[in-house]
Amino acid sequence: MPSISQKGLSMPESPIRKLVPYAEAAKERGIGVIHLNIGQPDIKTPKIALDAVKNIDLEVLAYSRTEGSEVYRQKIAKYYAKNDIEVNASQIIVTTGGSEALAFAISSIADIGDEIIIPEPFYANYNGFATAAGVKVVPVVSHIENNFALPPIEEFEKLISPRTRAILICNPGNPTGYLYSREEIKKLADIVKKHDLFLVADEVYREFTYDGMEHYSVLKEAGLEEHAILIDSVSKRYSMCGARIGYLVSKNKEVIKTALKFAQARLSPPTYAQIASEAALDTPQSYFDAVKVEYVSRRDLLIAELIKIDGIKVAKPQGAFYCIVELPIKNADTFAQWLLESFNVNGETVMVAPAGGFYATEGLGVNQIRIAYVLEKEDLKKAVYILGEALKAYKD
Amino acid sequence: MPSISQKGLSMPESPIRKLVPYAEAAKERGIGVIHLNIGQPDIKTPKIALDAVKNIDLEVLAYSRTEGSEVYRQKIAKYYAKNDIEVNASQIIVTTGGSEALAFAISSIADIGDEIIIPEPFYANYNGFATAAGVKVVPVVSHIENNFALPPIEEFEKLISPRTRAILICNPGNPTGYLYSREEIKKLADIVKKHDLFLVADEVYREFTYDGMEHYSVLKEAGLEEHAILIDSVSKRYSMCGARIGYLVSKNKEVIKTALKFAQARLSPPTYAQIASEAALDTPQSYFDAVKVEYVSRRDLLIAELIKIDGIKVAKPQGAFYCIVELPIKNADTFAQWLLESFNVNGETVMVAPAGGFYATEGLGVNQIRIAYVLEKEDLKKAVYILGEALKAYKD
Repeated sequence: MPSISQKGLSMPESPIRKLVPYAEAAKERGIGVIHLNIGQPDIKTPKIALDAVKNIDLEVLAYSRTEGSEVYRQKIAKYYAKNDIEVNASQIIVTTGGSEALAFAISSIADIGDEIIIPEPFYANYNGFATAAGVKVVPVVSHIENNFALPPIEEFEKLISPRTRAILICNPGNPTGYLYSREEIKKLADIVKKHDLFLVADEVYREFTYDGMEHYSVLKEAGLEEHAILIDSVSKRYSMCGARIGYLVSKNKEVIKTALKFAQARLSPPTYAQIASEAALDTPQSYFDAVKVEYVSRRDLLIAELIKIDGIKVAKPQGAFYCIVELPIKNADTFAQWLLESFNVNGETVMVAPAGGFYATEGLGVNQIRIAYVLEKEDLKKAVYILGEALKAYKD
Repeated sequence: MPSISQKGLSMPESPIRKLVPYAEAAKERGIGVIHLNIGQPDIKTPKIALDAVKNIDLEVLAYSRTEGSEVYRQKIAKYYAKNDIEVNASQIIVTTGGSEALAFAISSIADIGDEIIIPEPFYANYNGFATAAGVKVVPVVSHIENNFALPPIEEFEKLISPRTRAILICNPGNPTGYLYSREEIKKLADIVKKHDLFLVADEVYREFTYDGMEHYSVLKEAGLEEHAILIDSVSKRYSMCGARIGYLVSKNKEVIKTALKFAQARLSPPTYAQIASEAALDTPQSYFDAVKVEYVSRRDLLIAELIKIDGIKVAKPQGAFYCIVELPIKNADTFAQWLLESFNVNGETVMVAPAGGFYATEGLGVNQIRIAYVLEKEDLKKAVYILGEALKAYKD
């Protein structure tokens, strides 16, 4: 029997996926499972986007242009202009989700054995894409005690080696909800300029910033033109995760030229999804305002309920719709499985994402979980109550 | 300025893409360009597929399951059963186009520096995916004089090294139109079993076989269970290239388990496209019968017209909708550019795909072009007439 590649063997498995069979078994036993583990918003997709697909009359569902149509990319440039980001259509490649934009970015700037520094905890799939490209993730630790603020610049500099190619940030962050300040972005700008690195910024949660705080994009920072690569996506912005449309944006012509070669190999991004995503650009501001009000009230309720529980720590998120919670337990993997296998309150339990999978440093985050507040407030409240009761009953 | 990766620099550029600016310039000068270069069929997408998307009522365009829904994969398994291929849903991963299935397959079975043997000429993007994965394509030459039949098994054996991980075929072939016989598949089966290799078969043109010839899938061959990986796609079958849905199919559990880890990193294939593709499985046989009749009559007309031209050689395709044509010229790249820049008949010219990009061996195929017969017969006839006139006028 021919053997699997070493790369394939070293690909990480989704930490949440391991729990899925336990959740399914719980449901089969008649237990209700409230999902705190999922990044799939329950918010409605703008009707304008769904209607665009309903109303299109196609005879042939044909390939689109590899980088997305000129018209669509011009409209995307206008969206950025509204967000005080000046780019033109030729600096944008439409991709199959933010995922593909990230994969193209990594392959365009890093070779086998090269290193990318990422503040941890970070979105688990960064590790997957790095592994797939043979690139090493070098984590720099951020701490729940500081709300997961940018680690001190000295910590980055300690980690820079001749193989370092980039710093990758998620802003606002999944799984932390942390929003980097303008000053923090400027610090990162200084360091990537000094060491001739790329600064890759995943800004898919750009619109989700709270408490009057403003998002500061890496593309706003003067002098970063050759360094900044923006990863973007329609998934969360318009609650259309199933579209699978993202963008890679850079003013560095070589980056765009190179990423386009990777894009050519896969021909084109999905056509229906581009129709929906192009229409979604006309979503009225009132949609985002309402969504923001909803997330803020969910967040506030979630935090208020969580801090009632003895022995937990929680980092208050200023953006996105996740937060990391430290629990008074030893191992969140075991606890998450136990919640599904052995616990319920009146026939209901909760599924959480153990946070170990969001850290690259062995042993960090093992007593933490990530909660996504993409549920109605009533369900969120009930879920936190169940979590509290579970912690009283649990022995590890 | 930070530098691009070596991998990025070595990524091949699409050979057709280089010609696009010349085609655009021709059109701006008022010259009509007949496209013989494109693999985008003009055949209508089945209405049942388009209607499924029109009629779906979604509130949230959500992620699908990473590997495609259970129901969809069960229906795909039924499609294969109708084609005498026995697989079950757990042996199928729904991917974003056949492209992604191929990328997952290569990464699952080959590491940096490993080798994959491919009969050339081959689909140019195989090279792109191999380069992206750091894998080396080792070509084994097939010849226009033999209609691009499978090269002798000794030729494969000469090329097998300790780094060889797989043989990759396209059946029926793009760009050759060659359909491998059952005996040829059996020969390949013997060799992959003897040398413990994978046999990756791109069978996206399965339905397009002519002259009463039957397609023989690698998944039909007993004893190949652990070796065979099938790459499939809805793109050509239902003329829905823009959907971006494909399948990776294998009875080798380790392959599926590994490919699924790569799939998890990119979350899910596009949701709208899966709705259309699932519905397309109910396309009536009459659709395929009519399409086949159309392609056969186009092919017959194309070949009949081509052989009227002095000094050309053409391999008669038994499948797909491409053929390779050898021209009495030195360099097809220069000729293709000249056609767009400097030639027309009554204000019209043709765009062809130079075949050099379909060969990995330097210098092979430089006087060949690929023609895709995805145009109406009237246009095909006119295009070949223009090609003939051009060859009379051209000096290289």
